[in-house]
Amino acid sequence: MSTQGTTPRLHPSGSGLPADVLVELRGIVGDQYVLSLDGDVEPFSRDATPLFRARPDAVVLPGTTEEVSAVLTLASRRGIPVTPRGAGSNLAAATIPEHGGIVLVLTRMNRVLEVSEGELLAVVQAGTTTVTLAEAAAAKGLLYAPDPGSRTVSTVAGNVAMCAGGLRGLKYGVTRNYVLGLEVVLPTGEVMRTGGRLWKDVAGYDLTRLLTGSEGTLAVITEITVGLLPMPATAMTGLAYFDHLSDAGRAVARIIAEGTLPATLEFLDNRCVNAVEDYAQLGLDREAGALLLFGDDGGEEMVASSLQRMADVCTAVGARGVTLAQDIAGSEALLTARRCSLPALARLAPITMLEDVTVPRPRLAEMVETIDAIATKHSVTCATFGHAGDGNLHPTIVFDPDDGDARHRAEAAFDEIFHAAMALGGTITGEHGVGAAKRPWLAARLGPVQMALLQRIKTAFDPAGILNPGKLGS
Amino acid sequence: MSTQGTTPRLHPSGSGLPADVLVELRGIVGDQYVLSLDGDVEPFSRDATPLFRARPDAVVLPGTTEEVSAVLTLASRRGIPVTPRGAGSNLAAATIPEHGGIVLVLTRMNRVLEVSEGELLAVVQAGTTTVTLAEAAAAKGLLYAPDPGSRTVSTVAGNVAMCAGGLRGLKYGVTRNYVLGLEVVLPTGEVMRTGGRLWKDVAGYDLTRLLTGSEGTLAVITEITVGLLPMPATAMTGLAYFDHLSDAGRAVARIIAEGTLPATLEFLDNRCVNAVEDYAQLGLDREAGALLLFGDDGGEEMVASSLQRMADVCTAVGARGVTLAQDIAGSEALLTARRCSLPALARLAPITMLEDVTVPRPRLAEMVETIDAIATKHSVTCATFGHAGDGNLHPTIVFDPDDGDARHRAEAAFDEIFHAAMALGGTITGEHGVGAAKRPWLAARLGPVQMALLQRIKTAFDPAGILNPGKLGS
Repeated sequence: MSTQGTTPRLHPSGSGLPADVLVELRGIVGDQYVLSLDGDVEPFSRDATPLFRARPDAVVLPGTTEEVSAVLTLASRRGIPVTPRGAGSNLAAATIPEHGGIVLVLTRMNRVLEVSEGELLAVVQAGTTTVTLAEAAAAKGLLYAPDPGSRTVSTVAGNVAMCAGGLRGLKYGVTRNYVLGLEVVLPTGEVMRTGGRLWKDVAGYDLTRLLTGSEGTLAVITEITVGLLPMPATAMTGLAYFDHLSDAGRAVARIIAEGTLPATLEFLDNRCVNAVEDYAQLGLDREAGALLLFGDDGGEEMVASSLQRMADVCTAVGARGVTLAQDIAGSEALLTARRCSLPALARLAPITMLEDVTVPRPRLAEMVETIDAIATKHSVTCATFGHAGDGNLHPTIVFDPDDGDARHRAEAAFDEIFHAAMALGGTITGEHGVGAAKRPWLAARLGPVQMALLQRIKTAFDPAGILNPGKLGS
Repeated sequence: MSTQGTTPRLHPSGSGLPADVLVELRGIVGDQYVLSLDGDVEPFSRDATPLFRARPDAVVLPGTTEEVSAVLTLASRRGIPVTPRGAGSNLAAATIPEHGGIVLVLTRMNRVLEVSEGELLAVVQAGTTTVTLAEAAAAKGLLYAPDPGSRTVSTVAGNVAMCAGGLRGLKYGVTRNYVLGLEVVLPTGEVMRTGGRLWKDVAGYDLTRLLTGSEGTLAVITEITVGLLPMPATAMTGLAYFDHLSDAGRAVARIIAEGTLPATLEFLDNRCVNAVEDYAQLGLDREAGALLLFGDDGGEEMVASSLQRMADVCTAVGARGVTLAQDIAGSEALLTARRCSLPALARLAPITMLEDVTVPRPRLAEMVETIDAIATKHSVTCATFGHAGDGNLHPTIVFDPDDGDARHRAEAAFDEIFHAAMALGGTITGEHGVGAAKRPWLAARLGPVQMALLQRIKTAFDPAGILNPGKLGS
């Protein structure tokens, strides 16, 4: 994992942007929305990914689509790299401006423009936070289904750019399943609308989905139309402990084989359970090899019977203990164990590297065992939690950067973990994205034919290569 | 609507393919799988779209991905157009070989390679029919959710190439929601795999979704991995008659506002009801302004309560009559009314032009009224049915081609209908595709910036322009 861009900048490096460019940028968005001093731009030199950092020459905060267009037109003309960014909560170093230039921050464009009950959709500006969208929908009795872990801070455009996942993926799918239409600005400054307000629309190539997950390398997203669902009447959660993670894996397989795709099937391994217990004193079973959270939503009777069925399966495969929440507050309490996994692990050492491999669901327990063996081999502290229903694991290695070669051992362990996931028919990233962090493994995942095609698609959108250079397709 | 390609062929026209190309093609796939005589290629000069026809120079039926690759390599080298084709059931003239050359028919590659209960997926070859996939899944207790009307003959690769929809779109989405991975052959002959066996995988641009709906213009699909769902325990249907289509529209709005996204919400207008009754003598209410079919699937209790709730809504908005099927056989009988709409209308006149506009759901009744007014203005016989839950309408004009300017009146009516749908925030095609049939309206739907981008994406995949030339992005 390299932590800095090594390829040459597109514009003269070192001294920042030419003075006339700064003047022009200030003319477009207003003086106060162009930052170029060290202290001002420093927060935009990193995102939520540890170890990655690169200083932008300027940070620009546009207020309208027209301003985004004007900034991109200028950047295109002058060959200045532009890295679009929302909240910077991504975990793949996807918004690190490795080539300097402009970080284009969309957080000022944060209005919910519309929530339509009749059409089951919402229209929001790029910088709207995920939770703001979800709450605006909920206020009209509607559900915005994707729920990435960073939802309280992440922006909707960021979710779309990364195709964010979340805890409800098994039943509801991920961000891509809910994007109906986009307004984007191409690197040339041209404004384009894709899709629209319809769930069914096959006029033209599916640019809406191509842009979803394109990590800011093809266009800057300025407005999003998302599909909503009727709000489920209720949602409940249960919890089971198992001696071994393989038992939890068998429970997941049996639950799905019995015909249920529940909203939630999350697991924590033993190390994770203990870290959470140290952190939050929830009274978790520290001896358990695995904790499985299961939950469902819908009508009250359906949810009650779904939860009971899942509890029965857990008991049948030999769970050490099973708890069903009695009410919504109880459900939230159970979910706390999962939600505080990351902060709990982050307390263990200064650096927390959270990864995101996915394997076919039946290989989940095998993958966790492999991760544990790799961690032992490289003498790293690794805990794993994740979305058991999706086969999506978040192995997390914590270390002290001052501890000799700890970082190199962590990187070596992840390298083996990524290759092990691919060998099991899995992928290097299920929901966090590639960014700069996973770039070294992308070619191994996609192969040379697809890598070359990615570059050609990138060129079709961004012939000058100004958008988030160094990332996907660059 | 033009019925013939008018742009120049890529290869010398008139006399078919050079003799050495035919020899080479026979060497690749075997003598019996290269057709070039008039009588043999004639069935491949048209698909299910009336009025469109163009003779291919040769029809090639490969048996393996390697053969597809060899054919494309040859076609690339010699600049020969290649139009991929499955069953030819599409309704957009998307497989008409307007530039001659080779029609590449994938129907020999028709094996179900795998159905995995643990992973909830199936892997099939391109030419597998949709119903074969659905039955292979059902045999293991799994549901392949997309159900295009042509499912008994359509191929899975054809469904993917067109992003086919169907009757269950409201609850289950369309083909794109179920494609997990593809094996495709690029026009250069290079074989590429996109996606894989995972519901969550964000490594690289979403080429799986970009290829879905690309109408054979970017690559030839040879193998598809689709996601499956647990089979619902039961599925039931009800039927309601209304005086006016606007009442049916209000029922649909109320059903969804009450928090249900049912599996089925289909409508027939009065003309359609009468055509079906003439055809099948089902005892339908000929006086009804609209017939609404509503159905749901899932657990028995949930389905029973969902059906009753929908029936109650229909009664509350003033339905003339409501019938609930008592069992699965009764449900099938009710669905017959919808399923035989097209054959019933096709009996009315020699030519049946079935269209496919989508509007925002609340505008459905308004759109049907607009269609009726346009039909009256142009003196054409038009009946409309479709997916009320999706806002997806199939206005169908029937006429006798020997009846003077009937065809021109039909074309003029459709031109107005497409523009009216777009004016309501809708689209020119919800699920049938663009092909040659909708090409004249694509630029009006997408605008010049997106049209230019489509062409650049096409070039990124197919620089020589040999794949289905004249269609999307060409």
